[in-house]
Amino acid sequence: MEFPSKIVEEAVTQFARLPGIGKKTALRMVLHLLKQDIDPVQKLTQSLLNLKTELRYCEECHNISDSGLCNICADAKRDHEIICVVEDLRDVMAIENTNQYRGVYHILGGIISPVDGIGPGDLNIESLYERIHRLKTKEIIFAFAATMEGDTTAFYITKRLQPANLKISSIARGIAIGGELEYADEITLGRSIISRIPYAV
Amino acid sequence: MEFPSKIVEEAVTQFARLPGIGKKTALRMVLHLLKQDIDPVQKLTQSLLNLKTELRYCEECHNISDSGLCNICADAKRDHEIICVVEDLRDVMAIENTNQYRGVYHILGGIISPVDGIGPGDLNIESLYERIHRLKTKEIIFAFAATMEGDTTAFYITKRLQPANLKISSIARGIAIGGELEYADEITLGRSIISRIPYAV
Repeated sequence: MEFPSKIVEEAVTQFARLPGIGKKTALRMVLHLLKQDIDPVQKLTQSLLNLKTELRYCEECHNISDSGLCNICADAKRDHEIICVVEDLRDVMAIENTNQYRGVYHILGGIISPVDGIGPGDLNIESLYERIHRLKTKEIIFAFAATMEGDTTAFYITKRLQPANLKISSIARGIAIGGELEYADEITLGRSIISRIPYAV
Repeated sequence: MEFPSKIVEEAVTQFARLPGIGKKTALRMVLHLLKQDIDPVQKLTQSLLNLKTELRYCEECHNISDSGLCNICADAKRDHEIICVVEDLRDVMAIENTNQYRGVYHILGGIISPVDGIGPGDLNIESLYERIHRLKTKEIIFAFAATMEGDTTAFYITKRLQPANLKISSIARGIAIGGELEYADEITLGRSIISRIPYAV
């Protein structure tokens, strides 16, 4: 693709680095911004910079938070003896939408994926162990996508836990194989939490 | 969709204003940026701000340009007596990719669309008339999408021109190269029969 301007080319290149955005979509977005006043463009760029400069993470579960503890960890009415382990924020939002879960979360910040060079050391796994021991957690629930990487991550965490008095389960595979949590409808996802099944290695 | 943080919500809202981007895609892009260092995020935001502060438009054809005239208008080897009238930059890039056109362009910056509230006054149409008279243009070619809006725009411009010695044409409508007749819609196929072209071997 040849561009009439280096400035446009640079903006398209930067947009195309975002996941799911190809060069043609990026160009469409750039042309849209070109038609805008500078005000909406500044709002967009400022909100993106705020992500890096203003945002905090929950000290307990690594959820995104505007202060030290996230809303969920700070909520005394939630059951802090059950931890639902998820890949990222989108999964928390999807499960919260079902209104079926009253425990707390632990966000790994990714999933074990040798292909992408992501190992256990890149994820918030150590802090999960620490939490389980400190809080005398009674149950953990794995809520991963039904993929090889999801299964590997659940397997790895379970293998190292080998705990007494800790119930380990995984959300029911009502989720289609290969499906992402965020795209599941609330009913399927909610059902899969209710009918979670014991996790055995 | 409930967000755990106002900062994330604001970034998602801003991204979702872009064309073709829904809330879920926007969230995916925001989470991607969250995993990045601040450096790539600053590169992205700076390139977007540059679009509004650094970019110039060609004084002749309204193409995007890094200086007063765009590369095409500044090229003496191109045929300045033929003007191809298009909706936006993407059309120029698509036609340039074909290597079949050696004339110049005129970018309207949109298309007449009463539904979207876009009238002739919102487009670069007056400057097209001015160019045609000043440069003694011999031919103009409409290269619009084969839609109601495209036809309306071509009709409106032609109606006001009523010129002597000005050839007006539109890009051919017909079956795509490699396309099967049986899958073509009736209107396209009908049009391709009416505007059939002499067959030469």
